[in-house]
Amino acid sequence: MKKAVVLYSGGLDSTTCMAIAREQGFQPYALSFAYGQRHTVELDKARKYAPLIGAEEHMVIDIDLRKMGGSALTADIDVPKSGVCADEIPVTYVPARNTIFLSFALGWAEVLGASDIYIGVNALDYSGYPDCRPEFIQAFQQMANLATKAGVEGHPYQIHAPLLNLTKAQIIQQGLSLGVDYQLTHSCYDPTPEGLSCGQCDSCRLRLKGFADAGQEDPVSYV
Amino acid sequence: MKKAVVLYSGGLDSTTCMAIAREQGFQPYALSFAYGQRHTVELDKARKYAPLIGAEEHMVIDIDLRKMGGSALTADIDVPKSGVCADEIPVTYVPARNTIFLSFALGWAEVLGASDIYIGVNALDYSGYPDCRPEFIQAFQQMANLATKAGVEGHPYQIHAPLLNLTKAQIIQQGLSLGVDYQLTHSCYDPTPEGLSCGQCDSCRLRLKGFADAGQEDPVSYV
Repeated sequence: MKKAVVLYSGGLDSTTCMAIAREQGFQPYALSFAYGQRHTVELDKARKYAPLIGAEEHMVIDIDLRKMGGSALTADIDVPKSGVCADEIPVTYVPARNTIFLSFALGWAEVLGASDIYIGVNALDYSGYPDCRPEFIQAFQQMANLATKAGVEGHPYQIHAPLLNLTKAQIIQQGLSLGVDYQLTHSCYDPTPEGLSCGQCDSCRLRLKGFADAGQEDPVSYV
Repeated sequence: MKKAVVLYSGGLDSTTCMAIAREQGFQPYALSFAYGQRHTVELDKARKYAPLIGAEEHMVIDIDLRKMGGSALTADIDVPKSGVCADEIPVTYVPARNTIFLSFALGWAEVLGASDIYIGVNALDYSGYPDCRPEFIQAFQQMANLATKAGVEGHPYQIHAPLLNLTKAQIIQQGLSLGVDYQLTHSCYDPTPEGLSCGQCDSCRLRLKGFADAGQEDPVSYV
């Protein structure tokens, strides 16, 4: 089996993405980041769940994005809970986050001798983040193949974004058909210290709507 | 004055690059990384010298590339000292290093409201690193403008690589003409604990040859 690096947050999308990588014949090497996010519950759960959902190995890299600030997820800005999706890019956008994450994935892939990287970005429910769009993924892949020894020596990288054109409901349906246990996932931007989801942030709203649209019940606990 | 993020290692090239950014009318925001490099002397010197060479601010980001390994600079592989430059990419190559560094620079630039990033890569004396080539820099810039809020909203980033086509001797000559004090720079991959340069690693050899070709004396101390 070939190795693939899978960006893994412990959330619904990246967990589904890992199941898809396995089903496409890869051994998943899960990569998470401790990036100063306010919702460290997510990371604790990712550490616990990674082996349970079939990761061959799980690496957590510490990078302190709080030093930079600039986002509700890493700086002292309130997480919006109005449920109103504005046209503009929301304050939960973290500058260059997916670029930074994919760069580390690229480095690890090169060390592992892997040519495949999976990222669970989604263009439909993407909350307005520029680094969740297909043109970004393509541009990153192109850059990756000029940046690396493997790329230059004729072993090009492929950045897989299998959720790109799926609705949240379709993601959930696909995950369920692959046997994903969504109790082993976490989506809330602002959970309680005990790990209960708030049910009101953008991420909770998208998740709950996804389960409703899929005609399924969300197995995680809400306040 | 406009702000620019300058990737700054404390070495000869990035110090010259910062002088060029200033001369081109930018306030330099210096960005360094504690990435598990064996030569932490470099970083200590960077911290000390950044304000002396005119950085407006200096941020050091901790990222543990040792977890990944794969390079003589971050893993337990000997630094080559034969002086023979092989055709293949050397073991001091750190997988995806410049990609990772530029990604953080991009994030910080976005937070600062800066549109300009300086990197002191060099295509002539580049030691065979794929991420020091002009095609890589171009591909990164293209990706950056699709990855970010600023890029999407019509404030494109420019990645400046002013040393790209200069020889080491030309870099030194340009730096001296801009008043760079090369005693405030460090290049050695394998310095003594006291900070003396070895004079034998690739980086020392390139530096010494550069000073010789420029008809100048290197002010740093060697063993």
